[in-house]
Amino acid sequence: MKPIRDSVHEYITLDPVATDLLDTPTVQRLRHIKQLSTVRLVFPAANHTRFEHSLGVYHLASELVAHLDIDADTATHVRAAALLHDVGHGPYGHQTERLIHRRTGQDHDEIAWLLTDPERPVCQVLERHDLDPERVAALIDGQGPLGSLISGELDVDRMDYLVRDAHHTGVPYGTIDHGRLIRELRLEDDEPVLSAGNVATAESLLLARSLMNAIVYRHHVPRVAGAMLERACEQYLDRTETDIEGFRRLSDHDLLVGLCETVPELGRRIEHRDLYKRAVWADRGSVPAGTVDASYDDERAAESEIADCVNLDSEQVIVDIPDRPTLKESESRVIVNGTSQRLEDASELVGSLRATERARWRLGVYCPPEYRDVVGSAARDVLGIRGEELLSQ
Amino acid sequence: MKPIRDSVHEYITLDPVATDLLDTPTVQRLRHIKQLSTVRLVFPAANHTRFEHSLGVYHLASELVAHLDIDADTATHVRAAALLHDVGHGPYGHQTERLIHRRTGQDHDEIAWLLTDPERPVCQVLERHDLDPERVAALIDGQGPLGSLISGELDVDRMDYLVRDAHHTGVPYGTIDHGRLIRELRLEDDEPVLSAGNVATAESLLLARSLMNAIVYRHHVPRVAGAMLERACEQYLDRTETDIEGFRRLSDHDLLVGLCETVPELGRRIEHRDLYKRAVWADRGSVPAGTVDASYDDERAAESEIADCVNLDSEQVIVDIPDRPTLKESESRVIVNGTSQRLEDASELVGSLRATERARWRLGVYCPPEYRDVVGSAARDVLGIRGEELLSQ
Amino acid sequence: MKPIRDSVHEYITLDPVATDLLDTPTVQRLRHIKQLSTVRLVFPAANHTRFEHSLGVYHLASELVAHLDIDADTATHVRAAALLHDVGHGPYGHQTERLIHRRTGQDHDEIAWLLTDPERPVCQVLERHDLDPERVAALIDGQGPLGSLISGELDVDRMDYLVRDAHHTGVPYGTIDHGRLIRELRLEDDEPVLSAGNVATAESLLLARSLMNAIVYRHHVPRVAGAMLERACEQYLDRTETDIEGFRRLSDHDLLVGLCETVPELGRRIEHRDLYKRAVWADRGSVPAGTVDASYDDERAAESEIADCVNLDSEQVIVDIPDRPTLKESESRVIVNGTSQRLEDASELVGSLRATERARWRLGVYCPPEYRDVVGSAARDVLGIRGEELLSQ
Amino acid sequence: MKPIRDSVHEYITLDPVATDLLDTPTVQRLRHIKQLSTVRLVFPAANHTRFEHSLGVYHLASELVAHLDIDADTATHVRAAALLHDVGHGPYGHQTERLIHRRTGQDHDEIAWLLTDPERPVCQVLERHDLDPERVAALIDGQGPLGSLISGELDVDRMDYLVRDAHHTGVPYGTIDHGRLIRELRLEDDEPVLSAGNVATAESLLLARSLMNAIVYRHHVPRVAGAMLERACEQYLDRTETDIEGFRRLSDHDLLVGLCETVPELGRRIEHRDLYKRAVWADRGSVPAGTVDASYDDERAAESEIADCVNLDSEQVIVDIPDRPTLKESESRVIVNGTSQRLEDASELVGSLRATERARWRLGVYCPPEYRDVVGSAARDVLGIRGEELLSQ
Repeated sequence: MKPIRDSVHEYITLDPVATDLLDTPTVQRLRHIKQLSTVRLVFPAANHTRFEHSLGVYHLASELVAHLDIDADTATHVRAAALLHDVGHGPYGHQTERLIHRRTGQDHDEIAWLLTDPERPVCQVLERHDLDPERVAALIDGQGPLGSLISGELDVDRMDYLVRDAHHTGVPYGTIDHGRLIRELRLEDDEPVLSAGNVATAESLLLARSLMNAIVYRHHVPRVAGAMLERACEQYLDRTETDIEGFRRLSDHDLLVGLCETVPELGRRIEHRDLYKRAVWADRGSVPAGTVDASYDDERAAESEIADCVNLDSEQVIVDIPDRPTLKESESRVIVNGTSQRLEDASELVGSLRATERARWRLGVYCPPEYRDVVGSAARDVLGIRGEELLSQ
Repeated sequence: MKPIRDSVHEYITLDPVATDLLDTPTVQRLRHIKQLSTVRLVFPAANHTRFEHSLGVYHLASELVAHLDIDADTATHVRAAALLHDVGHGPYGHQTERLIHRRTGQDHDEIAWLLTDPERPVCQVLERHDLDPERVAALIDGQGPLGSLISGELDVDRMDYLVRDAHHTGVPYGTIDHGRLIRELRLEDDEPVLSAGNVATAESLLLARSLMNAIVYRHHVPRVAGAMLERACEQYLDRTETDIEGFRRLSDHDLLVGLCETVPELGRRIEHRDLYKRAVWADRGSVPAGTVDASYDDERAAESEIADCVNLDSEQVIVDIPDRPTLKESESRVIVNGTSQRLEDASELVGSLRATERARWRLGVYCPPEYRDVVGSAARDVLGIRGEELLSQ
Repeated sequence: MKPIRDSVHEYITLDPVATDLLDTPTVQRLRHIKQLSTVRLVFPAANHTRFEHSLGVYHLASELVAHLDIDADTATHVRAAALLHDVGHGPYGHQTERLIHRRTGQDHDEIAWLLTDPERPVCQVLERHDLDPERVAALIDGQGPLGSLISGELDVDRMDYLVRDAHHTGVPYGTIDHGRLIRELRLEDDEPVLSAGNVATAESLLLARSLMNAIVYRHHVPRVAGAMLERACEQYLDRTETDIEGFRRLSDHDLLVGLCETVPELGRRIEHRDLYKRAVWADRGSVPAGTVDASYDDERAAESEIADCVNLDSEQVIVDIPDRPTLKESESRVIVNGTSQRLEDASELVGSLRATERARWRLGVYCPPEYRDVVGSAARDVLGIRGEELLSQ
Repeated sequence: MKPIRDSVHEYITLDPVATDLLDTPTVQRLRHIKQLSTVRLVFPAANHTRFEHSLGVYHLASELVAHLDIDADTATHVRAAALLHDVGHGPYGHQTERLIHRRTGQDHDEIAWLLTDPERPVCQVLERHDLDPERVAALIDGQGPLGSLISGELDVDRMDYLVRDAHHTGVPYGTIDHGRLIRELRLEDDEPVLSAGNVATAESLLLARSLMNAIVYRHHVPRVAGAMLERACEQYLDRTETDIEGFRRLSDHDLLVGLCETVPELGRRIEHRDLYKRAVWADRGSVPAGTVDASYDDERAAESEIADCVNLDSEQVIVDIPDRPTLKESESRVIVNGTSQRLEDASELVGSLRATERARWRLGVYCPPEYRDVVGSAARDVLGIRGEELLSQ
């Protein structure tokens, strides 16, 4: 097997298990799932996919297990888990994750159902190489100390995506020192911990993610498009015979073609970037606590109520209330003065980054541009919003 | 309009015409045409699209017209032509170009039919801004000295794609100094010419393209996949009611979904990278002159004959005979010793780059891996191939 | 004048004033002052100079004044100030700044004495082009709204050095979006302010500097070498006839050759990186307040006392007590909700970055490695240090 | 030993021998020898040193020996040779090489005299680690198959410098794929050879060097400054008591300070970039064969004769006749069609690159700008130059 040329890590060399896994439809499908889904609508070069990201995570995991000096069998499981860590994603990745969770109760990293299915080539490849699919699935789900290196506070997943997303969007903010992070990581009492002198190294991961959140991941255009996509997917599932098991295995292009046929108004708008606009964009201080914690059903009910007020179809009003932000990296551990501490306790920055994420939280209400004023006014009434900031645009 | 962040040029700022053109379905469709079609099958990060490439070409054209100091009306036409230069591409870009040409007689840069159609928003935008669609189409077709800056020997198209393709594939070879190229270009006697002291600058464009050809553009894996795609498209057009006008306006994903439905064996193989392998890979010295210049019909006849010899469907054998290579850049002009010369005459390298391209020419015959030996042997007989090099793999 | 190729900004084009200033000995001397003085001892590639940095600051200032649309005469003064902003540095830049200040009362950005001296070509060039040297000096000193763009909270100086220092050290942390910073800056009520939507852009400058501080600028090896250099310079001035006016115009190499001759032990150690080691490395919590605020004379007295305790020459013990850290960028202003606010008030991060800088403060005592234990023990007694952290090495 | 951060290779980790070698004055001195000597006068950011270059060559050699799987003792010798390969350079590297060769008969890679001197720490370190200094010196001199990987047709020296010089000058031309080169190299019949499919990889090295020659290495400004420096050094040796053994161990700064004292006119001009200009710049076709092959003494005699004609000091006229260009890489070997061939025979490009180098050859005559016309005219007479090209500036 020749090394694979990558835009971030130069060359990635695969072990025999990974070589065979790569040829399965389950992994090849990731070529057709964009890493940043609707972000490309504002950063046009952000068309990279979960396929090359998965190769990148595999590469970093390979370096990490070589450095940690764990046994060969465990290392092979960890590398396989790294390569497969995103195969559970539905079309458009995180944008369909809530919908799939509502209908299946599963997140994208709960994939024992997929890896242990003996009908699937991915399961067959694992077993042919004497790997335990359940164990690989558990690692992907973040279980155990090694699982937390795949999906945890200090994992190879985010080490790859921060750098890769920066490279492909063109923003200068996601740059972290993954070489140093990997070299300085070790396992202590079954927990990953950064060795002494690395508080700033750990902070750099949080800072990079904070800036990428502000500039890229939480940009309002991808949020509007993502909310439109989620509504369109609900209608697509209602209007076609596709069941949720079939839906979650679609590719981005399968879904986009399907939406254009079945939900043509929203489908066309997403395909041609003819998006709804923000009628409301409200910060935490302007939104009643009850609204912040609204359930999915509450959101839909509010949409209908707003649409009714202004005589629009409920499809033409979207209420988008994000979850309260989390800061998983704050739990990562680092050696300070000879003992392992939570980064949160060792760093002055963690608290304020949490406050920053909170300050950046926004509730959005979106609609066709011609209805912004009336929808905005109705939405403020229905949702109880008072005194929000001016839109910066 | 806010500047757009690009992975290559940092920020791209649009004039009012470009801002409006960007929102037309004709330009938005380019988001769904990959720049390097099947190259992503060997360079997994090569998922960039003709949309961001078109923005990049627009950016370089803007810098160039500012530097050349031409009149505002002409400059606006040139910038619009740069933004629109690729809208004539069919799905999968160059991979369907021969097929579309066979059925319409048109290349992708002959697009007066598209730009002058008053039904299309792209035409309406041009006219609303007092631009002449015919004039824009002529520039895209490379007519006149300014047309040759869009599509010619020394054009902004290749200045963008060489750098962008390198950035997104991750290879270190496409790096050229577009800042210097643009600054040193001027019009003299209605011809673009590089000012004195720039022979090496001009050569660098050819060298970059030569290395990108060898490593990226002419890699055998994308060629195999591209040939499979072209055959599949022929069958798709035969088996469905899609006419060629509808076909050429499809997006990559429309086509891939269509192929998976209509030509399932080839469609699935392309989607999951389960490709044919090379049964023959022959250089110029091994191939009779008559075969080198085989017509499309000759190629198809040879496929049938080979397939018959070994009892396979003709769909399972693909004969792929590329055109003789050209070296358009050799015509570019540069000032040497006070007078304008063709690069070919000023540079020792041009002749050998032409010979290098010739030496890299390969005829390929592809088939499912299990039939390589029998197909190879039959193909050598049918095509008269003698003494080709060993495959390097 | 041809554009100058730069490692960070690609091409830098000079106006006629800058072209002439560049040829003066005052500016050419900056070729011989390293940007990061002793940092190269731990990041070996950090050999860039204040010459290319000054060109970079000139370039950003040119872009900024073009964007701000101020009058041509003022713009020329601002550009000249940008190019000249560092000519007041002594040899080894910041490492000799305290020493020069003690003997002249001047900082490196107080340079009216230099620019207005009619004997100097730099003054002659300014006057020949009808520029006012006093006005240029005032801009360099940060006076007025435009001065604050050269030397202030949000200045082009740090926009260049963060990116350049990252490029040449090889660390991935100094990356900021200077294109966006410059585009979003405007003058309002005679103050530079970032337009709405740019809190994160402003924060990115602080975050970049914070990480560069932690990893590069405050690394203990350059600090040890810098402290050795300062002591050696004091002795050089005592032992030779060089006066302070001559001293401050030396180049790095003049000084290094001089030290090797006059203060051979320290000179040789600096030249061959045979450095003292840390005997004490104490954080704020371990150091009595009186010691934190020790004067220069107090520091020297402590050195002598420690050296006496252990029978060493006072030259063999160095006490290094940094100033309390500042966070100048926190004063920068940004539009939030329609009004101009201090970044400190608009951002949750500023307070914690200040705390982070405070937490990173360290008092150091350095000596030849063989005396670490005895010097450390004596120094803790003399300076009243209790319970410092373990050294991370 | 912690890994060292590098601007090109991210992290470089040293083995115990290298760690100890690094601390010797012989290696530390390389911090004070610039990699590109006078190139910084036209590319201001090109201040990188032979110290970080040597670390980079060490790094690539480490990767190469790991890949080649040779015995541990040999590998240690190769790595040591890589780190030490440039310690034989005099001040200003290649610019003093001819002068040193005239007086000692030695090139910079003949350094047995230095490595085997038991008085020197570098020899002591080698012997303490059971390495044979003679064997290390032979590797540096390019002897044997492994020596040719340090200094040969396909060596790690040029793999590092092409990339590093591009990074620090800011030009986009030196980019080669060193990862692939190292992976594809193997030893066959005691010769380094690139495995099949790598003609273009081998060509890329030549192309990169050809463009770097044209744009950077052979730029006329560094050539003028280099010729001035060589003349100044001759006078410095005549006027001081420094012998050639002392001279060749100087650092750049020692020499520059010495020149400013001893040869003040030339020294000052070099320090402040107040350079001579080209009075003649003649290509091969304009120069008689006898002049092309002029000896050092012939050159000096011509200078005197020209100076006499126009009543100048001979110090004010410099005749600079470069050697005929070589193309060492053309001897590198690559597998084509199953057998090892010289690149020259496998590639169409090599011959034309040789012709290109020949076409770029220029004889220069330099003098203070005010004498350009008279010196040019006299020089054409004395040297027999006819019909040269116009200067491009």
